[in-house]
Order: sequence, then C-alpha cells, then structure tokens
Amino acid sequence: MNIIDQTALPHALRMLQLATLNDAAHAIRSMQVRGAPLIGVTAAYGVALALRQQDDEPTLAAAIGTLAATRPTAVNLRWALERMQSRLAALPPGSRADAAWQEADDIADEDVEQCRRIGEHGLSLLRPLAQEQGRLNLMTHCNAGWLATVDHGTALAPIYAAFAAGIDVHVWVSETRPRNQGLLTAWELKQRGVPHTLIADNAAGLLLARGKADAVIVGADRIAANGDVANKVGTYLKALAAREAGVPFYVAAPRSTIDFTCPDGASIPIEERSGDELRIAHGVDTNGSFGTLRQIPADEAVGNPAFDVTPARFVSAIITECGSVPASTTGLSRLSPEDKHA
Amino acid sequence: MNIIDQTALPHALRMLQLATLNDAAHAIRSMQVRGAPLIGVTAAYGVALALRQQDDEPTLAAAIGTLAATRPTAVNLRWALERMQSRLAALPPGSRADAAWQEADDIADEDVEQCRRIGEHGLSLLRPLAQEQGRLNLMTHCNAGWLATVDHGTALAPIYAAFAAGIDVHVWVSETRPRNQGLLTAWELKQRGVPHTLIADNAAGLLLARGKADAVIVGADRIAANGDVANKVGTYLKALAAREAGVPFYVAAPRSTIDFTCPDGASIPIEERSGDELRIAHGVDTNGSFGTLRQIPADEAVGNPAFDVTPARFVSAIITECGSVPASTTGLSRLSPEDKHA
Repeated sequence: MNIIDQTALPHALRMLQLATLNDAAHAIRSMQVRGAPLIGVTAAYGVALALRQQDDEPTLAAAIGTLAATRPTAVNLRWALERMQSRLAALPPGSRADAAWQEADDIADEDVEQCRRIGEHGLSLLRPLAQEQGRLNLMTHCNAGWLATVDHGTALAPIYAAFAAGIDVHVWVSETRPRNQGLLTAWELKQRGVPHTLIADNAAGLLLARGKADAVIVGADRIAANGDVANKVGTYLKALAAREAGVPFYVAAPRSTIDFTCPDGASIPIEERSGDELRIAHGVDTNGSFGTLRQIPADEAVGNPAFDVTPARFVSAIITECGSVPASTTGLSRLSPEDKHA
Repeated sequence: MNIIDQTALPHALRMLQLATLNDAAHAIRSMQVRGAPLIGVTAAYGVALALRQQDDEPTLAAAIGTLAATRPTAVNLRWALERMQSRLAALPPGSRADAAWQEADDIADEDVEQCRRIGEHGLSLLRPLAQEQGRLNLMTHCNAGWLATVDHGTALAPIYAAFAAGIDVHVWVSETRPRNQGLLTAWELKQRGVPHTLIADNAAGLLLARGKADAVIVGADRIAANGDVANKVGTYLKALAAREAGVPFYVAAPRSTIDFTCPDGASIPIEERSGDELRIAHGVDTNGSFGTLRQIPADEAVGNPAFDVTPARFVSAIITECGSVPASTTGLSRLSPEDKHA
C-alpha cells in the first residue's frame, strides 16, 4: 500500500510504501495517514499485510489488536477491523491473505464512491445558499478532504462538487492547532484551484459574527446514535459561533462513522496526545530543509485533547452517502444497518 | 524607560532601553511591549522621550501622531496620548520635558494601583466560586498579567490575589495563536508559582463543556459604551463556550479601557496584522539559539485579524479599579468621567 506521508506536507510531497503490519500501525499512530476514513482503509490493508507475512490465528488476532489500539476516537478504524474480521472468520488459515487484500481494496473503492455521493448530497444543501448570495463562503476545520479519505473527502467533497458545478466558492481554512491540519486542507484545495484563505483558529468567531461565512462544514471521527459528533478539537467552538451567527453547521461523513452502539457524545473516548505537539514547531528553514524549534519550554505542563464533542442540537444536518439526515436519534435511525430502508 | 522585550520570552529575559520616540513607537508596533495598559504607559513615555530630544510644537504633534498610529484597537493608547496632550497644552514649549516625564510616571504609578484594585474586586467575585468548589479552575486568553501592565495585570490580578489569599488555584492558559501570548502568561504565572496548564486555543470548548473551568477571565483592548468588549482574537469563542457551560465570563480592565465615545462593538476598528505571524514559527533550536521556521508557504493567502468583539450579553461583569459593574450602558455609565459618583 502506497501513502502520501502527510507529516511532510505542505513542504514536500513524499510517498511511503507500507510493507508490513508495523508500517501500517506506525503510519496511523504518527499521523502519516490521518482522517477517519483513511485510517479505516489503512487498518484494513494493515490486516492484509500481516496475513501476507503469516496467515494464522494468532497473527490475525495480534494484527487486529495492534491496529485497534493506534487511535481511540475514530470509529471507522474499529468498523474496518470488524469488517475484516467477519470476512476472514469463515475462511481457513493459510488461504486468507488474498481475500484480506481484496476486502481492503473493496473498502477503499467503496470509500471513493461514498465520498462522491457525500459530495452530491452536500451540493444540494449548498446550492440554495449560493443562489441566495451569488457566491459561497464556506468555513472548514482540520482536513477532511481527499488527503483524509481515498478520494474526494468528506467535508471537502461538497466543496469540490460546488466548485466543479461552477459556483464561485471561497473557503476559510482554520489552521487547526496543534497539528496544523488546516495546512493540508490549504494544500489540497490549491492542487485543485479552489480559492481559500488560511486563518488562525481564533479568527473563526469574528469571521462568522461579521457575516463572512455562509456555512461551516466539517468531517467527523465518530457520530453517536443521538447525533452528537466527535471531531478534531476546536470543531465545537465553530459550531457555537455558527449557531450564534445563524449559519448552518454541516457534518459530512460516511455511514461507517456513525456508532450506533454509542448512545451519546459523553460516551466517546477523547484521545489525549503528547504535549510536544504544542511544544515543538515543525517547518522548513531558509534552505528548504525540514527542521523543528522548541516553542514551549519542556517543563511547561501542556494539555492536549485531540477531539471535542459537538452536541447534536448545533448540527444542521449530517451528510452521508445515503443522503442528508437530521442529527438526532430519529434522523440517524434511517441509516441504521438494522433499518431495511437503509 | 526600560522594558522587557516580550518577543524573546519565554526563552530569554532580555531588557531593552527605550531612548527615543522611535524606540517607543517600534516597541509598540513590533509587540516588544504589548497589552493595552502597558501600550498606554509606553506611549506616554514616548511623548516624554520626544520632548527630551526637542521641545517644540511640531515635535509634540508628530510624536502624538506617530504613537497614535502604532496600533488601532487598544483605546488606552489614545487615552494616554490625550492625557499627555492636555497636561502639556498649558505649558510653554521649552519647559515641558520634565512635566511630560512626571505625567508618564504618574500614569505608570496609577496603573499599578488600578491593577491592584482590579485584583481585589475580582477576588470578591472569585471567592464564592472557590468556596463552592474547594478549589478554583480558571481559564484565560492571551496575556493580561504583569507583563501587559506595569504590575499585577488586569485579568491575572484577581488570579494572583486569589493565589495570595491561599485559594487552591489552577489556570488553563490558552496558547493564543498566532502570536502565542499564552506562553507569556505561562511564563509569568511560573515566576509567581501559580499552577497552570497550557492548551491549544481549540481545547477551550471541550474543557468548558466538561466542567473543567469554574470561570473565564480575560482583559480588554477596548470596551464600548454599551459593554461590548474588543480583546485578543479568540476571546469571543471562549465567551460562547462559557455561556454554554453556564460559567461566568469576566472582563478585567482599568476604566481607561472604556471608550464612552464608541457606541458598540461594531464601531471598534479591528487591526489586521501580517499573515507572516501565522506563516513563520519562532522558537529556540537544540542549542538554545533563537530561530524561525516557515510553517506555511509564502504564496498561501492568510487572514489575520488581531482582535474580536464579545457582545455585552456574554459578559458576566466588567471588573475595574472602581469595582465590578454589569456590561451594559447603565452599568458602565456609573464609571463615566461625567458621572460625579465615578
């Protein structure tokens, strides 16, 4: 499996080949790959890579355990591993490597198609806003584009669809401290020619209050059964500011991001990451070489929760590959795997 | 006038002597000194330094013009310059340098006393919260401590007063992108031994929503006559999250921060600063030498408003040297210079 090493962006486009289970686990843990859907796909290939090395029960169990422990919040990871597990359970050890690879390919292909549909369903929400304004100013947080998925993205899929439809789009891209994933969003929007402006996360409130954004659109790492949304830390503050400004706040995610076993946001585990993510700045020096600088003394206590929870009542709609639904138990139940209409 | 060069903190404690008007103007513009009260004091000394060089009408007018143009949002700057102007207007040119120096000293001494009183009045608001909880978890934004004033600080004065009174205090210190003034707050709290934790600005919402803060307390750069508060960008997002969490949101500032000629927040000019504040990271390398790294490519468009406006309805109280008042036209009118009880 080949990936873009996202820790080198936006300064260098560096490809990495993942050849072993450990490569895949390290890529997820260190955020060389990130974004809930791409984490799921990478985990699926991680299982296939492990079985290529050795196809027996202990290897499969260890691979699933190792991959499941890499990141706690994104539910697509667990979803992809459960799917691999149930696909492989019926097959005898020694014959599963090819099936695992095929299943991972299927997950990747389905992700492309799901994101394309999220783009279409999102566009039908954005089009009336654009018609009202003559142009469309959107705000996003973190990176939920084609870098975070296999293609198109989740939150960015409707933006790409709007741009492709000839709508005059501009995107406010929030820096997304401490890991600065906004720089990834700016980079990928630039590759596709979509006009955008980077801002500090702190500037989102002023811009929304002054009418500079017509909608906010973000991805999700886990959606609870009641519609509460866990996403990159800072999402909740944008939801508050959007509600105050009276502009819609959309969450775009594949159905696999919905955790029907999780009753509400309070039950979602929030990953606490190393304080060094704030302490150490990464970038390039005047020669273009990668480097780091210490911004915060090592003995300074740092808190670094990686996600927050936006209560369902602040979410205008959840945009999935099956259409847009209200962020509520009733709305989401239409998408439940137990619902025969889903 | 001797200052701490705040652009070298928290990595080095470097003193600078301001010897000329241009030194003072540069110190304000480049944020070697920052914080609304300290900007006012530095501008007053800047006038005195100009008159020491040459005491005539064109010099005085040029000095006031130069200093007034350094930063547009903080009203204490204008207030200090108007006070210098009116003190010096009655005196003949050639005899005003000493009077100017004396007036600047008076402004500095009064700032210390005002901040001390802000601490006392703030403590009387915080004490009941501490009694309820057995300890006190506070959150602040930017730096409104003794680095931003002559001593004590504004937002941090009540925190220092609570700590001195033996209350078990802990402070969540928000990084405050893009200029990272939270690092200054962490540095000065550490000098006084006050327990604190640095967080990304994005983490404020989660912490407030999960009950980890009992109150938010910030400074102000300008308070409009109706109680709307301009302060460092990102303040408004914390106010929204505090209201949602049901915890008080306090603004601490000397009376000179209130602009009775400014009807509301929409009339406050918001300074737009260079995008390089986001693009370039500052810190120290492994040898402890100062350095910079490019985080964002130079051709990436960046928006960088330096302040935002928190509507009066989100402000629980404004804490001044004359006591705490509601953030409203009626509340603030008690502090108006035209009010004889003020």
